Amino acid sequence: MSPYPEREPRSPLATLDDDALRRFHADAAARHAAFADRRLSLDMTRGKPSPEQLDLCNALLELPGSGQGAWQAADGADCRNYFGDLRGLPEARALFTGMVGAPVEQILIGDNSSLALMHDAIVHALLHGVPGGAAPWRHAASIGFLCPSPGYDRHFAICEGYGIRMIPVPLTGRGPDMAVVERLAAADAGIKGMWCVPQYSNPTGETYADEVVERLAAMPTAAADFRLFWDNAYAVHHLDGAPARLANVLEACRRHGHADRALVFASTSKITFAGAGLAVFASSPDNMAWFMRHMARRSIGPDKLNQLRHVRLLRDADGIAALMQAHRRILAPKFRRVGEIFTALLGGYGVASWNAPQGGYFISLDVADGAAARTVALAGQAGIALVPAGRTFPYGRDPHDRNIRIAPSFPPLDQVALAAEGVALSLLLAASDLLLRRRGLAGGTS
Amino acid sequence: MSPYPEREPRSPLATLDDDALRRFHADAAARHAAFADRRLSLDMTRGKPSPEQLDLCNALLELPGSGQGAWQAADGADCRNYFGDLRGLPEARALFTGMVGAPVEQILIGDNSSLALMHDAIVHALLHGVPGGAAPWRHAASIGFLCPSPGYDRHFAICEGYGIRMIPVPLTGRGPDMAVVERLAAADAGIKGMWCVPQYSNPTGETYADEVVERLAAMPTAAADFRLFWDNAYAVHHLDGAPARLANVLEACRRHGHADRALVFASTSKITFAGAGLAVFASSPDNMAWFMRHMARRSIGPDKLNQLRHVRLLRDADGIAALMQAHRRILAPKFRRVGEIFTALLGGYGVASWNAPQGGYFISLDVADGAAARTVALAGQAGIALVPAGRTFPYGRDPHDRNIRIAPSFPPLDQVALAAEGVALSLLLAASDLLLRRRGLAGGTS
Repeated sequence: MSPYPEREPRSPLATLDDDALRRFHADAAARHAAFADRRLSLDMTRGKPSPEQLDLCNALLELPGSGQGAWQAADGADCRNYFGDLRGLPEARALFTGMVGAPVEQILIGDNSSLALMHDAIVHALLHGVPGGAAPWRHAASIGFLCPSPGYDRHFAICEGYGIRMIPVPLTGRGPDMAVVERLAAADAGIKGMWCVPQYSNPTGETYADEVVERLAAMPTAAADFRLFWDNAYAVHHLDGAPARLANVLEACRRHGHADRALVFASTSKITFAGAGLAVFASSPDNMAWFMRHMARRSIGPDKLNQLRHVRLLRDADGIAALMQAHRRILAPKFRRVGEIFTALLGGYGVASWNAPQGGYFISLDVADGAAARTVALAGQAGIALVPAGRTFPYGRDPHDRNIRIAPSFPPLDQVALAAEGVALSLLLAASDLLLRRRGLAGGTS
Repeated sequence: MSPYPEREPRSPLATLDDDALRRFHADAAARHAAFADRRLSLDMTRGKPSPEQLDLCNALLELPGSGQGAWQAADGADCRNYFGDLRGLPEARALFTGMVGAPVEQILIGDNSSLALMHDAIVHALLHGVPGGAAPWRHAASIGFLCPSPGYDRHFAICEGYGIRMIPVPLTGRGPDMAVVERLAAADAGIKGMWCVPQYSNPTGETYADEVVERLAAMPTAAADFRLFWDNAYAVHHLDGAPARLANVLEACRRHGHADRALVFASTSKITFAGAGLAVFASSPDNMAWFMRHMARRSIGPDKLNQLRHVRLLRDADGIAALMQAHRRILAPKFRRVGEIFTALLGGYGVASWNAPQGGYFISLDVADGAAARTVALAGQAGIALVPAGRTFPYGRDPHDRNIRIAPSFPPLDQVALAAEGVALSLLLAASDLLLRRRGLAGGTS
């Protein structure tokens, strides 16, 4: 049985008789055309912060300042010059102990991209191997990664770029389907890693349940050098409701005798400035030594002035929490509005389901099987840019052409509302069109 | 014949009779001991800018500022957010057209480390191959790099880390010995690259003559995918005298039908802030496309705010030139003082030669063969930290234990003078000690 079963096409829309369906379709086409006539240009492609969010951190733009001692770290070191510890400033690393669940000694700050740290970890593993491994990964006949899907396209692009075979794993709403994960990891020594966005997962918004974290930490793997790539990108990015609580994967792995299993990543790209923030890596002492040994060949060290800026702005975990509250006040209404519009326009037809995420940057919209690409195309015609359908799956192939990632963060609230309306109208047209075609009826748009 | 011939040990010191040599040695030991008794702690290890130099760019510490439009690029783009061109801001790339000899389209700005760009170019070549190559470099049985030596230890560390065989090539004062380079490159298809610091070379200070650049661009290579790693780290870092003029290697390679041969690197680490500046990469259109294709998997893009800071501070090539004049006024007296002290203390003994560089960050001190490591050790006993002897050669092995890299940039002028004195005294002791031992005479320190 495929881990991604087909859905029964028994939606209320599907129960309409042919004439009613033709009328519904004609009406949907008219509404879509009227929307398109407004010639809007709305962008819901990427999880970008809005200018209003970025304004929250404008103090960074004149930090650290040029006054006496402004460029000095807590220990007096001159952050304008080369120095010291590849891991970065201790006071910058201390900002993230709670977020990554590790002590300062086991935290390293990179430059502006946590993706780059994940990428480099894979490159080091390919070329040199990892602690506990008998050989560089590239010596294996076929390397594979487990890919909970829908997931983050840039994770998948790294695997594709390095010829790492990707095996999609379904998500359950509480994390990946662990029965599937355990079976695959135990059976195939070529499976060396797994992508995880454990909290407010991109795009489904789910947070891995304690039991899932526990099983990931405990499970036997055929590969002795198996690694969890734990991209905790949304650790403090709460929206409405109770904040998610994620178990400490480093602690769980250690407890189960797999201390080196998890590589934990985080970043401030969606806390301070996207592309000008800090990237964070945390892991076991052995993994830290391994990563730094290879990192030392690449660079004399990260940009400490940017670390200093962040220390001065964020101060501590409480400072980060307060800033994230301000982000939430801007973001939460956009997410709410999308949900309201989807409910108003799509409710009752049974052609879509979507989540109301408790955090993160995305709404995951599952549409009638076979209608996602057509919906995205129709949205494009209506002036709404969405990420291409399929992009949330390995190799860009959604097995049922079902998932659409909605990114409501960037546009202003009124534009988010318009875009959600346009997406809903596009979906109604695509879904009714699909049903007509399945019945062999004319009238479907091409 | 070894490309690194031994020197005749016919120094004036060597012409002393045994008694005179014993007296010289005892005197040198006494002076060294007296110096050591001062219990100084002086650091001449790395080419770090001094605090006084860093102060020249303190305006960066409050740039770009938080006023209206302060964070916008020339085209209005918001540099606080993700966007656009992986190559970075056009106006930032325009700062470096003269320095790297390429148009804006063929320039890319990385983060804070040009070493990282070189490292990544090698990783991409190993894992994917380069334009014009039939296969990834890692598929070759044995990959080698030509290494003009003495050279930059961090270049050599990359090769060592990736198992790339290093072949030392002598320098002539006008660049590498091209007869050696041409012979090796033509003979061995495993030789895939060559490290070059073409202007004010680290540590010898020499600039590659036009004829050398021409021959590097024109020479046949057994490997179709041979690359010059052209680390133009000191392109605008002039000291006293007439600035060096370096031929445009990209233009020369194109003219000789090897458009993709050169990968050009530069950085502002010794223009603005060391470790918080901009790294620069320039090459042919095909190489740029190649590099960006692989870079795109690693990161959404570089830190544009830091690019904006540099644009606002440096403005243009004239702004850079004016800043480098200010650096020169601080640096040149330190280099002069080292030369004066070496001449005063070492002149006439024939135990050392050194250069008076026209630019760059180093003085290359060649001592009596076999005396470099002992000199560095004695300097350490006298409170002066020098980079370990041999470090300027591949695998840390100076074939004649001859070269010492002196980095006078960081300490204040009076400390530079003291350190030069201590190095000279250490050398006189090491050299006389060596001669005594060669004659089988007692009295040598151990």
